[in-house]
Amino acid sequence: MAKNNGKMVEAITSMEEDFAKWYTDIVKKAELIEYTSVKGCMVIRPYGYAIWENIQKILDGMFKATGHENVCMPMFIPESLLQKEKDHVEGFAPEVAWVTYGGNEKLEERLCVRPTSETLFCEHYANIIHSYRDLPKLYNQWVSVVRWEKTTRPFLRSREFLWQEGHTIHATAEEAIEETERMLNTYAEFCEKSLAMPVIKGRKTDSDKFAGAESTYAIEALMHDGKALQAGTSHYFGDGFAKAFGIQYTNKENKLQYPHQTSWGVTTRLIGAIIMTHGDDNGLVLPPAVAPIQAVIVPVAQHKEGVLEKAGELYEKLKSAGIRVKLDDSENSAGWKYAEYEMKGVPVRIEIGPKDIENNRCVLATRYNGEKTTVSLENMLETFKDKVVSLLEDEIPQGMFDKALENMKKRTYACKTMDEIVKVLAENGDGFVKAMWCGDEECEDKVKEATGVGSRCVPFEQEEISDTCVCCGKPAKKMVLWAKAY
Amino acid sequence: MAKNNGKMVEAITSMEEDFAKWYTDIVKKAELIEYTSVKGCMVIRPYGYAIWENIQKILDGMFKATGHENVCMPMFIPESLLQKEKDHVEGFAPEVAWVTYGGNEKLEERLCVRPTSETLFCEHYANIIHSYRDLPKLYNQWVSVVRWEKTTRPFLRSREFLWQEGHTIHATAEEAIEETERMLNTYAEFCEKSLAMPVIKGRKTDSDKFAGAESTYAIEALMHDGKALQAGTSHYFGDGFAKAFGIQYTNKENKLQYPHQTSWGVTTRLIGAIIMTHGDDNGLVLPPAVAPIQAVIVPVAQHKEGVLEKAGELYEKLKSAGIRVKLDDSENSAGWKYAEYEMKGVPVRIEIGPKDIENNRCVLATRYNGEKTTVSLENMLETFKDKVVSLLEDEIPQGMFDKALENMKKRTYACKTMDEIVKVLAENGDGFVKAMWCGDEECEDKVKEATGVGSRCVPFEQEEISDTCVCCGKPAKKMVLWAKAY
Repeated sequence: MAKNNGKMVEAITSMEEDFAKWYTDIVKKAELIEYTSVKGCMVIRPYGYAIWENIQKILDGMFKATGHENVCMPMFIPESLLQKEKDHVEGFAPEVAWVTYGGNEKLEERLCVRPTSETLFCEHYANIIHSYRDLPKLYNQWVSVVRWEKTTRPFLRSREFLWQEGHTIHATAEEAIEETERMLNTYAEFCEKSLAMPVIKGRKTDSDKFAGAESTYAIEALMHDGKALQAGTSHYFGDGFAKAFGIQYTNKENKLQYPHQTSWGVTTRLIGAIIMTHGDDNGLVLPPAVAPIQAVIVPVAQHKEGVLEKAGELYEKLKSAGIRVKLDDSENSAGWKYAEYEMKGVPVRIEIGPKDIENNRCVLATRYNGEKTTVSLENMLETFKDKVVSLLEDEIPQGMFDKALENMKKRTYACKTMDEIVKVLAENGDGFVKAMWCGDEECEDKVKEATGVGSRCVPFEQEEISDTCVCCGKPAKKMVLWAKAY
Repeated sequence: MAKNNGKMVEAITSMEEDFAKWYTDIVKKAELIEYTSVKGCMVIRPYGYAIWENIQKILDGMFKATGHENVCMPMFIPESLLQKEKDHVEGFAPEVAWVTYGGNEKLEERLCVRPTSETLFCEHYANIIHSYRDLPKLYNQWVSVVRWEKTTRPFLRSREFLWQEGHTIHATAEEAIEETERMLNTYAEFCEKSLAMPVIKGRKTDSDKFAGAESTYAIEALMHDGKALQAGTSHYFGDGFAKAFGIQYTNKENKLQYPHQTSWGVTTRLIGAIIMTHGDDNGLVLPPAVAPIQAVIVPVAQHKEGVLEKAGELYEKLKSAGIRVKLDDSENSAGWKYAEYEMKGVPVRIEIGPKDIENNRCVLATRYNGEKTTVSLENMLETFKDKVVSLLEDEIPQGMFDKALENMKKRTYACKTMDEIVKVLAENGDGFVKAMWCGDEECEDKVKEATGVGSRCVPFEQEEISDTCVCCGKPAKKMVLWAKAY
């Protein structure tokens, strides 16, 4: 425990000892969230919210680059509107919050707080789409939604959470399916490049589809404890919603047609995924692309002549290169600062003290692997700046990704029988299981009952583990990815 | 009515004929909003939302430059939490939406959808503030809030609206008051520079303060129809909330103290203010800083050889200069396009046709004053680009501001008696009235009853219109700004 100036960097529970407590310790002690008296809802604190802002900025840029526009729908949905699409209301009605009074007056019709906004987008599309010239509409919104969960955990499952929901509408099924795939690929690219988090792309089985969807695609990531986390989903709706909401357009031949729709979303859950993919027993480990502070400069023996001045030069050099850099010249000890910024997951720490200055160099410590390198301060600090940029843009994200991918590979097991699944997981701990499936929902349920792992998705990249279903022994149709999940 | 390709740019009601209808026509026909089946709530469409995104980006930068951090609080407030500060609950309880059910279960305690978040911030501050080292906290959030209004109008008054709410907490009253003033000045600067909208800064009278505030500052703008619009507010709370919520800190002498708080906000109402300050009978007129499209290139006789090619060059030149530029090469006629982008308020239209190309020039038309100028395309398009930049950054915002200021001055009347107020308004139409006040709430009410104008604020820049109260004739204490208001 580094202690200083009345404050202390508190230790966190180790992962091995209690993974759930380790997680909660990090979200609290890295000051990502704070609990509130509103059960199941949280305050996202500045450091946590800054991560979300960085996620938003990158994703929003990717959405706009592919022609999407942001809009904002109301947060309320009248009960009659929610009920228009049968599967959709069945899926969501049991878990929505109902507004029944406005001021002192009871409402004539109760309103739910949006759990998702398909119904509102459909109502809007019915109003504004008339001709093929009005298609496609490629809309997205950044809002919060509410689902009345029984058990909640910060970022992973909360009654209110932040997300983006894309809702698009197209003239043809082909275009809509292409969009569904494009956005899943966008999510996968974002997770792998910006979050350094490998994901498996695939299609959900029918039992796990979004309420009202024809097909749901998902990306699945593997957490440190061997559990899967669904990091993003993309749904193809066919023309089911269009029919339920009476959305029609006249095509070039002047015939009335039903358009085809999609929706897709990622949530603040991604912050939970970052924690559980990269974190360690010293705290958070943040991918540089979304880290609120990308590099922190810690002066050593800062009272000595020239130290703060040199630290200031390094700060200006990195700042002018567009790096999110912090110079901590507070009176806390260097040791306290090391522990604090390790807890907060800052990707690069720069140490500069009298001896470094004497030798015209400084030390760079990278958070994810704990390595230290010495870099020269010659050449107008260009060498130093180039090294930090290279760390943040290439070496660290690549290193973090490789480390996470290695963990995923190590914990991915190909199994031919249910007995093998049970045995492998008991011996090695939780992880991804690849096993064949006949396509029968009953077998899917039985695998979960017997082994504890449920189907996560049917990966796009198929392998042939065996010829027969892991459960019933009949001919297999698909390889499924199975796991325990968040 | 320019008509083309099956689409038509519809005319809007003229301002003179029916100002309210003119306003509604613009918000609908410029595709800023669309109505929904959720009474009093609206869809903010891409073009409207893009204006809000630009407002957000500029303001968020100003907030961060003054040390503020973004956070996110829950959208729900338990009834018991709302009730902690007496004046606050009295002000807001009659107009909140109440959630009473979560799924099928009745909640033990009902939750209101936040109408504003002082209570949530206070609860959070009580959790995280202990020592003088924890102060100040300079927080802000960008969210939507709900107030159950009876009559609603797009942007101006809706049951749900988007806003930012800043909430800060300080060791001393002086610091908090300084913050309250700083943020009011920030708002005024934003309105005047980025929205080209002159505002009057002042303090609300006690009858018009925010529920729970010690003092409320506001900026007031004057709309085209002579009505005032409150464009932003900043509140100083003293230590009232801290006492109600038990927020205390130990100072350097280790004594327990109550901190002092502020809050401040602006809303999507600003979009309504832009419409009614700058708009005209041809539609929207947008200030360049927040216009989704800053310049539109309209090729004339685009089927002629070289026209689209040259238009493309102009597009690339402006785009690489960071201008939000659109090239409309659709098959609609040039006339249709002129009308369309006038309706949408695009600040600069660039016309380029065969004759222009022959003479190596193009025509720039500025939306707010309808003026056309010819600019040379020599010098690698540098002259052209410089002219467009100069229009967008200097000439247009300054011209729009001057025009709005002239209108405000023309419609500001200094009056010494209530009879004079009635007479001046009858003769000249609505506007700002400057008149003296004794400080008595009864007189304030009487002025409103007798003349129709209510007190908007006590301007920071005081003038002495006379010695005596415009109502009772007793010695005057302050000059008040009076007006009818949105």
